[in-house]
Amino acid sequence: MFPQWIIEKKRDGAALTPEEIGFFVRGYVDGTIPDYQMAAFVMAIAIRGMNFDETCSLTKCMLESGIVIDTSSIHQPKLDKHSTGGIGDKISLVLAPLVAACGAAVPMISGRGLGITGGTLDKLESIPGYRVNLTEKEFLRVVGECGCSITGASEKIAPADKKLYALRDVTGTVPSLPLIVASILSKKMAAGLDGIVFDVKWGKGAFMKTKQSAKNLAKALVEVSRLSKLRATALLTDMNQPLGRAVGNALEVIETVETLQGRGPADVVQLTLALGAKMLLLAGSAGDENSARRKLMDKISSGEAFERFSRMVRLHGGDAGFLNRPDDLVRADIKRPLEAGSAGYLQEANAELIGQAAIALGAGRGKLGDEIDHSVGIICLKKIGDSAGHGEPLAWIYANSEERFALARPLLAEAFKVGDERLKPPKLIVGEI
Amino acid sequence: MFPQWIIEKKRDGAALTPEEIGFFVRGYVDGTIPDYQMAAFVMAIAIRGMNFDETCSLTKCMLESGIVIDTSSIHQPKLDKHSTGGIGDKISLVLAPLVAACGAAVPMISGRGLGITGGTLDKLESIPGYRVNLTEKEFLRVVGECGCSITGASEKIAPADKKLYALRDVTGTVPSLPLIVASILSKKMAAGLDGIVFDVKWGKGAFMKTKQSAKNLAKALVEVSRLSKLRATALLTDMNQPLGRAVGNALEVIETVETLQGRGPADVVQLTLALGAKMLLLAGSAGDENSARRKLMDKISSGEAFERFSRMVRLHGGDAGFLNRPDDLVRADIKRPLEAGSAGYLQEANAELIGQAAIALGAGRGKLGDEIDHSVGIICLKKIGDSAGHGEPLAWIYANSEERFALARPLLAEAFKVGDERLKPPKLIVGEI
Repeated sequence: MFPQWIIEKKRDGAALTPEEIGFFVRGYVDGTIPDYQMAAFVMAIAIRGMNFDETCSLTKCMLESGIVIDTSSIHQPKLDKHSTGGIGDKISLVLAPLVAACGAAVPMISGRGLGITGGTLDKLESIPGYRVNLTEKEFLRVVGECGCSITGASEKIAPADKKLYALRDVTGTVPSLPLIVASILSKKMAAGLDGIVFDVKWGKGAFMKTKQSAKNLAKALVEVSRLSKLRATALLTDMNQPLGRAVGNALEVIETVETLQGRGPADVVQLTLALGAKMLLLAGSAGDENSARRKLMDKISSGEAFERFSRMVRLHGGDAGFLNRPDDLVRADIKRPLEAGSAGYLQEANAELIGQAAIALGAGRGKLGDEIDHSVGIICLKKIGDSAGHGEPLAWIYANSEERFALARPLLAEAFKVGDERLKPPKLIVGEI
Repeated sequence: MFPQWIIEKKRDGAALTPEEIGFFVRGYVDGTIPDYQMAAFVMAIAIRGMNFDETCSLTKCMLESGIVIDTSSIHQPKLDKHSTGGIGDKISLVLAPLVAACGAAVPMISGRGLGITGGTLDKLESIPGYRVNLTEKEFLRVVGECGCSITGASEKIAPADKKLYALRDVTGTVPSLPLIVASILSKKMAAGLDGIVFDVKWGKGAFMKTKQSAKNLAKALVEVSRLSKLRATALLTDMNQPLGRAVGNALEVIETVETLQGRGPADVVQLTLALGAKMLLLAGSAGDENSARRKLMDKISSGEAFERFSRMVRLHGGDAGFLNRPDDLVRADIKRPLEAGSAGYLQEANAELIGQAAIALGAGRGKLGDEIDHSVGIICLKKIGDSAGHGEPLAWIYANSEERFALARPLLAEAFKVGDERLKPPKLIVGEI
């Protein structure tokens, strides 16, 4: 078998066998297939696509390039949630302890933010001491002790994905459905899951700009998961305006705490309950959607969900005391309102521009390796359809330098549009696969 | 401008600007764009294609990566012929001196053989002393003195093409129309031509297996040449059976001499006159096709064409005395016939299998850098439609070892098919662009 034969086959649009895919991925990891052959191969995949069986083989090969954590010591059903990323999306931080409090295990391997999309690990690192680089042994111990853990993928997990992602980033092959699906699933499956719920977002602040493209991705994720013997469900959700109020790492941790204590914004609560219910149904821990929701709400009102989060933070080396002292967690020198220029209704809160403003403030990364400032960010006070008086604050800007504030403010002024007509608030959850 | 932006644009099927193509090719040659980005880019081109304007820009950039020979000292019109390659195709060796004898200049930069296709330079090297590595200065001097020269492309000519071809070879991107066209033209145009005639072959022994794909290539070659301000014509010709009788380097030089002396096989003569007439028309050296053919035939019968070939050989350092001593040129220990197993008519002389037999004998290269034996080869005595008696030789096999003979013979036995029905001889020239 020569690498170029396999490249040519995909170039001409044919489906590859598991052996051909395995030969290519193994060769790439062990260095016998050079970057330039892989670059040609992934471009052929990006243009010609892969069917679900091929994508399943690719996922398996990438998973098997590294270790699969032995979770046989955990006897609860093991669930996870994956979001394709958005602005203000802190749902993972809320869901992991909440679902764990309901009796399932949530061994969550998560990632960092890049571009306008925030990263779960970056958010957790705003809690002083929180370690996101647990060893596999530590990860298992934390899940065993509090039912959940959110950590990063070690070098041992899916090394093929790490090597391939760096190549895709510079060869125009990032937006390819089969490559995206294999990248997500190979890392998630390394935690030895029984089931997974996907939150596939569409809109201005999402990777997928149209509802249809998000639907295609959701379908591929669910189908390939099922072919890989993983129970799976996906929700399609709106990411044209930010999720919740807080955008920025420490600000989002505070909103997580508020939500776990029953004081969260309506949209964050709605999505948490919807995704959490799906997880409990996949786990077999609830008979139907309504009883699942009741169970989740009970764990919030009883305080168990927040207690579980605090315990997870402590087990990761974090100082959980900060969770009750928001002012210590967020140390921004500048805190100024963005005021409505005229009275009316909020017609747009452009998530993409708000994400760009967050990067400008230092809350996110323009490129891999950039330092981030955990304290800065934006509190979005108004949602589409809300009324605003003349001069009323639409958002608060948290910054740590005048330069960065000056970069972010015009982006936010453009993002928030107030007008006379009251638009109907957009639907948050628009579909299910 | 980032390389990945340009890759993405082509991935999505858009046409690139001359600036984008220039940025990419220059970056690849100076090393700022690595192999893996070029590999992704050429795969996107191989799948999405390029229009004629883009291909013209690509050709120009590849040409300008090297030198363009200053042919201002040559006052005749400068013409060339390019064949896409076939089995027994020695037409360049005949045409260059013949067209030069008619008063035009033929500064021909030619290539070596790879795979079943023979190479003009390899054929010439079977003449003891013939140098195919003239400097640009020597090349100009030879053209000035005898009207023609056939030499190889120096390192200074289209280095982008050399680097790119090596990459395409291992990334499944060889069969791409725009990449093929730019590769051919960038080298040919470095000789400062006024016009070029293409012999685009289709069939079992050709790069293009179907008449339609050959037609597409011919159209692209002619259109891109014209956009590049080069007069151009293409003939579409049959390569299902070998051209002429001789297949093998020295054997083909002998057939060249026979043709230049008026004793060539009918198909070689027919194609030489057709291509030569097109060249004279492009040069403006003949008013119409018939007078061009008469001029060419006159130069053969007068002996001037052969004299011109001998002179070119001598100017290249070759021993022209060998041209009159075929037995000294071909030193094969084994010379055996392939006999017809039954009486009938030749129904097939499969050019691909005959080409493979020639490689097996050592006349061609399986892979780049293989040594070749100039003396070995095949003389095909019968053409499709010819009658053959039981036991009559269909071909002669020239070999220099029993091992190689044993490899080649079964391929030839399979290539030559004799049957009861007399098939109509296939048409040699099937179209013109």
